Amino acid sequence: MAEAIPISDCRFRVLTLSGSLRSASSNTALLEAAARLAPPALSLRQYYGWGALPAFNPDQEGQAPDSVLAFRDALRSVDAVLIASPEYAHGVPGAFKNALDWVVGSGEFIHKPVAAINASGRAVHAQASLLDTLTMMNADVALTACAVIALPTNRLDAAAMLADAAIADGLRRVLAALHAHLLGKGSDGAGMA
Amino acid sequence: MAEAIPISDCRFRVLTLSGSLRSASSNTALLEAAARLAPPALSLRQYYGWGALPAFNPDQEGQAPDSVLAFRDALRSVDAVLIASPEYAHGVPGAFKNALDWVVGSGEFIHKPVAAINASGRAVHAQASLLDTLTMMNADVALTACAVIALPTNRLDAAAMLADAAIADGLRRVLAALHAHLLGKGSDGAGMA
Repeated sequence: MAEAIPISDCRFRVLTLSGSLRSASSNTALLEAAARLAPPALSLRQYYGWGALPAFNPDQEGQAPDSVLAFRDALRSVDAVLIASPEYAHGVPGAFKNALDWVVGSGEFIHKPVAAINASGRAVHAQASLLDTLTMMNADVALTACAVIALPTNRLDAAAMLADAAIADGLRRVLAALHAHLLGKGSDGAGMA
Repeated sequence: MAEAIPISDCRFRVLTLSGSLRSASSNTALLEAAARLAPPALSLRQYYGWGALPAFNPDQEGQAPDSVLAFRDALRSVDAVLIASPEYAHGVPGAFKNALDWVVGSGEFIHKPVAAINASGRAVHAQASLLDTLTMMNADVALTACAVIALPTNRLDAAAMLADAAIADGLRRVLAALHAHLLGKGSDGAGMA
Protein backbone atom coordinates (compact mmCIF):
# COMPACT_ATOMS: atom_id res chain seq x y z
CA MET A 1 0.00 0.00 0.00
CA ALA A 2 1.31 3.44 -0.88
CA GLU A 3 2.21 5.66 2.03
CA ALA A 4 -0.16 8.58 2.57
CA ILE A 5 1.16 11.90 1.30
CA PRO A 6 1.39 14.37 4.21
CA ILE A 7 -1.24 17.07 3.82
CA SER A 8 1.51 19.72 3.82
CA ASP A 9 2.87 18.28 0.54
CA CYS A 10 -0.47 18.40 -1.25
CA ARG A 11 -0.99 20.63 -4.23
CA PHE A 12 -4.31 22.44 -4.16
CA ARG A 13 -6.16 23.46 -7.33
CA VAL A 14 -7.66 26.92 -7.17
CA LEU A 15 -10.11 28.28 -9.75
CA THR A 16 -9.94 32.06 -10.08
CA LEU A 17 -12.93 34.11 -11.16
CA SER A 18 -12.77 37.78 -12.14
CA GLY A 19 -16.11 39.56 -11.83
CA SER A 20 -15.30 41.81 -14.78
CA LEU A 21 -15.42 41.03 -18.49
CA ARG A 22 -13.42 44.14 -19.46
CA SER A 23 -10.37 43.19 -21.51
CA ALA A 24 -8.19 45.50 -19.39
CA SER A 25 -9.86 44.59 -16.08
CA SER A 26 -7.77 45.24 -12.98
CA ASN A 27 -9.46 42.33 -11.23
CA THR A 28 -8.59 39.93 -14.05
CA ALA A 29 -5.00 41.20 -14.06
CA LEU A 30 -4.80 40.86 -10.28
CA LEU A 31 -5.75 37.18 -10.56
CA GLU A 32 -3.24 36.66 -13.39
CA ALA A 33 -0.57 38.16 -11.15
CA ALA A 34 -1.68 35.92 -8.27
CA ALA A 35 -1.36 32.85 -10.50
CA ARG A 36 2.28 33.74 -11.26
CA LEU A 37 3.08 34.35 -7.59
CA ALA A 38 1.41 31.21 -6.29
CA PRO A 39 3.57 28.98 -4.09
CA PRO A 40 4.19 25.40 -5.34
CA ALA A 41 1.39 24.15 -3.10
CA LEU A 42 -1.25 26.14 -5.01
CA SER A 43 -2.10 25.83 -8.67
CA LEU A 44 -4.24 28.72 -9.94
CA ARG A 45 -6.26 28.62 -13.14
CA GLN A 46 -8.54 31.40 -14.33
CA TYR A 47 -12.02 30.60 -15.63
CA TYR A 48 -13.15 33.04 -18.30
CA GLY A 49 -16.33 31.34 -19.49
CA TRP A 50 -18.93 32.62 -17.03
CA GLY A 51 -19.83 35.65 -19.17
CA ALA A 52 -21.43 33.30 -21.73
CA LEU A 53 -23.99 31.90 -19.29
CA PRO A 54 -27.61 32.71 -20.14
CA ALA A 55 -29.90 34.45 -17.68
CA PHE A 56 -30.69 32.06 -14.83
CA ASN A 57 -34.19 30.66 -15.01
CA PRO A 58 -35.23 28.24 -12.25
CA ASP A 59 -37.44 26.45 -14.82
CA GLN A 60 -34.27 25.38 -16.63
CA GLU A 61 -32.21 24.44 -13.59
CA GLY A 62 -32.41 20.71 -14.33
CA GLN A 63 -31.68 21.06 -18.06
CA ALA A 64 -28.94 23.64 -17.88
CA PRO A 65 -27.14 24.52 -21.13
CA ASP A 66 -23.57 23.39 -21.86
CA SER A 67 -22.04 26.69 -20.71
CA VAL A 68 -23.57 26.15 -17.27
CA LEU A 69 -22.50 22.49 -17.13
CA ALA A 70 -18.92 23.53 -18.00
CA PHE A 71 -18.96 26.11 -15.20
CA ARG A 72 -20.24 23.52 -12.72
CA ASP A 73 -17.57 21.00 -13.86
CA ALA A 74 -14.84 23.61 -13.46
CA LEU A 75 -15.98 24.35 -9.90
CA ARG A 76 -16.23 20.66 -8.99
CA SER A 77 -12.69 19.99 -10.23
CA VAL A 78 -10.96 22.37 -7.81
CA ASP A 79 -10.17 22.54 -4.10
CA ALA A 80 -10.85 26.26 -3.72
CA VAL A 81 -12.09 29.37 -5.53
CA LEU A 82 -10.51 32.82 -5.50
CA ILE A 83 -12.72 35.70 -6.67
CA ALA A 84 -11.80 39.29 -7.55
CA SER A 85 -14.83 41.37 -8.44
CA PRO A 86 -15.49 45.04 -9.12
CA GLU A 87 -18.56 46.85 -7.84
CA TYR A 88 -21.25 48.07 -10.25
CA ALA A 89 -23.95 50.44 -8.92
CA HIS A 90 -23.43 49.42 -5.29
CA GLY A 91 -23.67 45.72 -6.09
CA VAL A 92 -21.96 42.64 -7.46
CA PRO A 93 -21.82 42.78 -11.28
CA GLY A 94 -25.16 41.28 -12.27
CA ALA A 95 -23.76 38.87 -14.82
CA PHE A 96 -21.31 37.50 -12.26
CA LYS A 97 -24.08 37.06 -9.69
CA ASN A 98 -26.06 35.33 -12.45
CA ALA A 99 -23.27 32.73 -12.74
CA LEU A 100 -23.51 32.15 -8.98
CA ASP A 101 -27.32 31.84 -9.24
CA TRP A 102 -26.83 28.90 -11.64
CA VAL A 103 -24.90 26.91 -9.00
CA VAL A 104 -26.99 27.61 -5.89
CA GLY A 105 -29.24 24.60 -6.49
CA SER A 106 -26.57 22.33 -7.98
CA GLY A 107 -24.41 22.92 -4.91
CA GLU A 108 -20.86 23.29 -6.24
CA PHE A 109 -20.08 25.95 -3.63
CA ILE A 110 -21.28 23.93 -0.64
CA HIS A 111 -18.32 23.63 1.76
CA LYS A 112 -16.01 24.88 -0.99
CA PRO A 113 -13.22 27.08 0.38
CA VAL A 114 -13.62 30.51 -1.23
CA ALA A 115 -11.84 33.83 -0.82
CA ALA A 116 -12.67 37.19 -2.38
CA ILE A 117 -10.10 39.88 -2.97
CA ASN A 118 -10.75 43.37 -4.14
CA ALA A 119 -8.79 45.81 -6.28
CA SER A 120 -10.53 48.79 -4.72
CA GLY A 121 -11.03 49.78 -1.10
CA ARG A 122 -14.28 51.47 -2.12
CA ALA A 123 -16.07 48.33 -3.37
CA VAL A 124 -17.58 47.83 0.08
CA HIS A 125 -21.16 47.07 -1.01
CA ALA A 126 -20.16 44.48 -3.59
CA GLN A 127 -17.67 42.77 -1.27
CA ALA A 128 -20.21 42.57 1.58
CA SER A 129 -22.96 41.37 -0.75
CA LEU A 130 -20.69 38.76 -2.36
CA LEU A 131 -19.61 37.34 1.01
CA ASP A 132 -23.25 37.28 2.12
CA THR A 133 -24.30 35.39 -1.01
CA LEU A 134 -21.40 32.90 -0.70
CA THR A 135 -22.28 32.28 2.95
CA MET A 136 -25.93 31.77 1.98
CA MET A 137 -24.66 29.19 -0.55
CA ASN A 138 -22.90 27.38 2.32
CA ALA A 139 -19.46 28.08 0.92
CA ASP A 140 -16.53 27.81 3.32
CA VAL A 141 -15.54 31.50 3.17
CA ALA A 142 -11.86 31.89 4.05
CA LEU A 143 -12.15 35.33 5.60
CA THR A 144 -8.43 35.42 6.47
CA ALA A 145 -7.72 35.31 2.72
CA CYS A 146 -10.22 38.05 1.83
CA ALA A 147 -8.35 41.32 1.39
CA VAL A 148 -8.23 44.60 -0.44
CA ILE A 149 -5.19 44.91 -2.70
CA ALA A 150 -5.64 48.60 -3.41
CA LEU A 151 -4.16 49.56 -6.77
CA PRO A 152 -2.62 53.01 -7.24
CA THR A 153 -4.23 53.19 -10.71
CA ASN A 154 -6.60 51.00 -12.74
CA ARG A 155 -4.14 50.90 -15.63
CA LEU A 156 -1.77 48.22 -14.36
CA ASP A 157 -1.46 44.91 -16.13
CA ALA A 158 -0.35 41.72 -14.39
CA ALA A 159 3.36 42.35 -15.14
CA ALA A 160 3.17 45.85 -13.64
CA MET A 161 1.43 44.43 -10.57
CA LEU A 162 4.19 41.84 -10.12
CA ALA A 163 6.77 44.63 -10.35
CA ASP A 164 5.02 46.58 -7.56
CA ALA A 165 6.33 45.32 -4.20
CA ALA A 166 3.21 46.31 -2.21
CA ILE A 167 0.82 44.60 -4.62
CA ALA A 168 2.96 41.47 -4.93
CA ASP A 169 3.32 41.30 -1.16
CA GLY A 170 -0.45 41.70 -0.71
CA LEU A 171 -1.11 38.87 -3.14
CA ARG A 172 1.46 36.61 -1.43
CA ARG A 173 -0.30 37.17 1.90
CA VAL A 174 -3.67 36.27 0.37
CA LEU A 175 -2.24 33.10 -1.16
CA ALA A 176 -0.50 32.13 2.10
CA ALA A 177 -3.74 32.67 4.03
CA LEU A 178 -5.71 30.60 1.52
CA HIS A 179 -3.09 27.85 1.70
CA ALA A 180 -3.22 27.88 5.51
CA HIS A 181 -7.00 27.69 5.36
CA LEU A 182 -6.83 24.67 3.03
CA LEU A 183 -4.26 22.94 5.25
CA GLY A 184 -6.36 23.65 8.33
CA LYS A 185 -9.37 22.21 6.61
CA GLY A 186 -7.47 19.16 5.37
CA SER A 187 -6.08 18.37 8.82
CA ASP A 188 -9.52 18.52 10.34
CA GLY A 189 -9.23 22.07 11.59
CA ALA A 190 -5.98 21.50 13.50
CA GLY A 191 -4.38 24.55 11.94
CA MET A 192 -7.30 26.87 12.50
CA ALA A 193 -7.20 29.61 15.10
CA MET B 1 -53.21 77.52 -28.52
CA ALA B 2 -54.54 74.41 -26.81
CA GLU B 3 -55.33 74.70 -23.15
CA ALA B 4 -52.93 72.87 -20.86
CA ILE B 5 -54.23 69.60 -19.52
CA PRO B 6 -54.35 69.71 -15.71
CA ILE B 7 -51.72 67.40 -14.28
CA SER B 8 -54.43 65.46 -12.42
CA ASP B 9 -55.92 64.40 -15.78
CA CYS B 10 -52.63 63.09 -17.17
CA ARG B 11 -52.19 59.44 -17.93
CA PHE B 12 -48.84 58.10 -16.79
CA ARG B 13 -47.08 55.25 -18.56
CA VAL B 14 -45.52 52.71 -16.20
CA LEU B 15 -43.14 49.97 -17.32
CA THR B 16 -43.28 46.91 -15.08
CA LEU B 17 -40.30 44.61 -14.63
CA SER B 18 -40.44 41.22 -12.96
CA GLY B 19 -37.07 40.05 -11.66
CA SER B 20 -37.94 36.42 -12.38
CA LEU B 21 -37.94 34.56 -15.69
CA ARG B 22 -39.94 31.60 -14.33
CA SER B 23 -43.06 31.02 -16.40
CA ALA B 24 -45.15 30.68 -13.20
CA SER B 25 -43.39 33.52 -11.37
CA SER B 26 -45.39 35.09 -8.54
CA ASN B 27 -43.69 38.41 -9.18
CA THR B 28 -44.65 38.38 -12.86
CA ALA B 29 -48.24 37.45 -11.93
CA LEU B 30 -48.33 40.21 -9.31
CA LEU B 31 -47.42 42.77 -11.96
CA GLU B 32 -50.02 41.34 -14.36
CA ALA B 33 -52.61 41.70 -11.61
CA ALA B 34 -51.43 45.27 -10.95
CA ALA B 35 -51.87 46.13 -14.63
CA ARG B 36 -55.51 45.00 -14.52
CA LEU B 37 -56.19 46.97 -11.32
CA ALA B 38 -54.51 50.17 -12.46
CA PRO B 39 -56.64 53.31 -12.21
CA PRO B 40 -57.34 55.18 -15.49
CA ALA B 41 -54.49 57.57 -14.69
CA LEU B 42 -51.89 54.79 -14.91
CA SER B 43 -51.15 52.60 -17.90
CA LEU B 44 -49.01 49.58 -17.01
CA ARG B 45 -47.08 47.52 -19.55
CA GLN B 46 -44.80 44.63 -18.67
CA TYR B 47 -41.38 44.33 -20.29
CA TYR B 48 -40.30 40.73 -20.73
CA GLY B 49 -37.16 41.19 -22.82
CA TRP B 50 -34.49 41.82 -20.21
CA GLY B 51 -33.61 38.12 -19.88
CA ALA B 52 -32.13 38.19 -23.37
CA LEU B 53 -29.52 40.83 -22.54
CA PRO B 54 -25.91 39.61 -22.76
CA ALA B 55 -23.52 39.90 -19.83
CA PHE B 56 -22.69 43.56 -19.28
CA ASN B 57 -19.19 44.44 -20.43
CA PRO B 58 -18.10 48.07 -19.98
CA ASP B 59 -15.99 47.72 -23.15
CA GLN B 60 -19.22 47.37 -25.14
CA GLU B 61 -21.20 50.10 -23.40
CA GLY B 62 -21.06 52.43 -26.41
CA GLN B 63 -21.90 49.71 -28.96
CA ALA B 64 -24.61 47.92 -27.07
CA PRO B 65 -26.49 45.15 -28.88
CA ASP B 66 -30.10 45.55 -30.07
CA SER B 67 -31.55 43.84 -26.99
CA VAL B 68 -29.94 46.49 -24.79
CA LEU B 69 -31.05 49.34 -27.06
CA ALA B 70 -34.63 48.03 -26.93
CA PHE B 71 -34.49 47.94 -23.12
CA ARG B 72 -33.15 51.50 -23.00
CA ASP B 73 -35.88 52.68 -25.43
CA ALA B 74 -38.58 51.01 -23.34
CA LEU B 75 -37.34 52.77 -20.20
CA ARG B 76 -37.09 56.14 -21.95
CA SER B 77 -40.66 55.87 -23.23
CA VAL B 78 -42.30 55.68 -19.78
CA ASP B 79 -42.98 57.99 -16.85
CA ALA B 80 -42.25 55.44 -14.15
CA VAL B 81 -41.03 51.91 -13.49
CA LEU B 82 -42.56 49.34 -11.15
CA ILE B 83 -40.36 46.39 -10.20
CA ALA B 84 -41.27 43.10 -8.49
CA SER B 85 -38.23 40.93 -7.87
CA PRO B 86 -37.56 37.71 -5.99
CA GLU B 87 -34.43 37.15 -3.93
CA TYR B 88 -31.81 34.61 -5.02
CA ALA B 89 -29.05 33.67 -2.54
CA HIS B 90 -29.47 36.84 -0.48
CA GLY B 91 -29.29 39.09 -3.51
CA VAL B 92 -31.07 40.53 -6.51
CA PRO B 93 -31.31 37.91 -9.29
CA GLY B 94 -28.02 38.36 -11.12
CA ALA B 95 -29.55 38.49 -14.58
CA PHE B 96 -31.93 41.25 -13.50
CA LYS B 97 -29.08 43.24 -11.92
CA ASN B 98 -27.21 42.71 -15.20
CA ALA B 99 -30.03 44.50 -17.04
CA LEU B 100 -29.68 47.41 -14.60
CA ASP B 101 -25.89 47.43 -15.11
CA TRP B 102 -26.48 48.08 -18.84
CA VAL B 103 -28.36 51.33 -18.10
CA VAL B 104 -26.17 52.83 -15.36
CA GLY B 105 -23.98 54.67 -17.85
CA SER B 106 -26.71 55.44 -20.39
CA GLY B 107 -28.78 57.04 -17.63
CA GLU B 108 -32.36 55.91 -18.29
CA PHE B 109 -33.03 55.64 -14.54
CA ILE B 110 -31.76 59.13 -13.66
CA HIS B 111 -34.66 60.97 -11.95
CA LYS B 112 -37.03 58.23 -13.14
CA PRO B 113 -39.77 57.50 -10.58
CA VAL B 114 -39.36 53.86 -9.54
CA ALA B 115 -41.08 51.64 -7.00
CA ALA B 116 -40.26 48.08 -6.00
CA ILE B 117 -42.83 45.69 -4.60
CA ASN B 118 -42.16 42.28 -3.20
CA ALA B 119 -44.16 39.06 -3.17
CA SER B 120 -42.33 37.82 -0.08
CA GLY B 121 -41.73 39.46 3.29
CA ARG B 122 -38.49 37.48 3.53
CA ALA B 123 -36.77 38.99 0.48
CA VAL B 124 -35.17 41.63 2.69
CA HIS B 125 -31.63 41.44 1.28
CA ALA B 126 -32.75 41.70 -2.33
CA GLN B 127 -35.17 44.55 -1.64
CA ALA B 128 -32.55 46.55 0.29
CA SER B 129 -29.89 45.90 -2.32
CA LEU B 130 -32.22 46.82 -5.19
CA LEU B 131 -33.23 50.13 -3.57
CA ASP B 132 -29.55 50.86 -2.86
CA THR B 133 -28.63 50.21 -6.49
CA LEU B 134 -31.54 52.31 -7.82
CA THR B 135 -30.57 55.16 -5.50
CA MET B 136 -26.95 54.89 -6.68
CA MET B 137 -28.31 55.18 -10.24
CA ASN B 138 -30.02 58.45 -9.21
CA ALA B 139 -33.50 57.04 -9.71
CA ASP B 140 -36.35 58.85 -7.99
CA VAL B 141 -37.30 55.99 -5.65
CA ALA B 142 -40.96 56.33 -4.62
CA LEU B 143 -40.58 54.74 -1.19
CA THR B 144 -44.27 55.27 -0.37
CA ALA B 145 -45.09 52.90 -3.25
CA CYS B 146 -42.58 50.22 -2.19
CA ALA B 147 -44.41 47.49 -0.32
CA VAL B 148 -44.57 43.82 0.46
CA ILE B 149 -47.67 42.13 -0.95
CA ALA B 150 -47.20 38.88 0.92
CA LEU B 151 -48.76 35.97 -0.93
CA PRO B 152 -50.29 33.07 1.03
CA THR B 153 -48.75 30.64 -1.50
CA ASN B 154 -46.51 30.94 -4.54
CA ARG B 155 -49.03 29.12 -6.72
CA LEU B 156 -51.39 32.02 -7.45
CA ASP B 157 -51.78 33.35 -10.95
CA ALA B 158 -52.90 36.91 -11.71
CA ALA B 159 -56.60 35.98 -11.74
CA ALA B 160 -56.34 34.32 -8.31
CA MET B 161 -54.53 37.41 -6.99
CA LEU B 162 -57.29 39.67 -8.28
CA ALA B 163 -59.84 37.45 -6.53
CA ASP B 164 -57.99 37.79 -3.20
CA ALA B 165 -59.22 40.96 -1.47
CA ALA B 166 -56.03 41.48 0.58
CA ILE B 167 -53.73 41.16 -2.41
CA ALA B 168 -55.92 43.34 -4.64
CA ASP B 169 -56.15 45.95 -1.91
CA GLY B 170 -52.38 45.90 -1.41
CA LEU B 171 -51.83 46.43 -5.13
CA ARG B 172 -54.37 49.28 -5.23
CA ARG B 173 -52.51 51.04 -2.43
CA VAL B 174 -49.20 50.66 -4.27
CA LEU B 175 -50.70 52.08 -7.45
CA ALA B 176 -52.36 54.96 -5.60
CA ALA B 177 -49.06 55.79 -3.89
CA LEU B 178 -47.19 55.67 -7.19
CA HIS B 179 -49.82 57.89 -8.78
CA ALA B 180 -49.58 60.37 -5.91
CA HIS B 181 -45.80 60.36 -6.26
CA LEU B 182 -46.08 61.13 -9.98
CA LEU B 183 -48.61 63.91 -9.38
CA GLY B 184 -46.42 65.35 -6.63
CA LYS B 185 -43.46 65.30 -8.95
CA GLY B 186 -45.42 66.81 -11.85
CA SER B 187 -46.73 69.66 -9.71
CA ASP B 188 -43.22 70.48 -8.57
CA GLY B 189 -43.41 68.60 -5.33
CA ALA B 190 -46.56 70.33 -4.09
CA GLY B 191 -48.14 67.00 -3.19
CA MET B 192 -45.14 65.62 -1.34
CA ALA B 193 -45.15 65.25 2.43
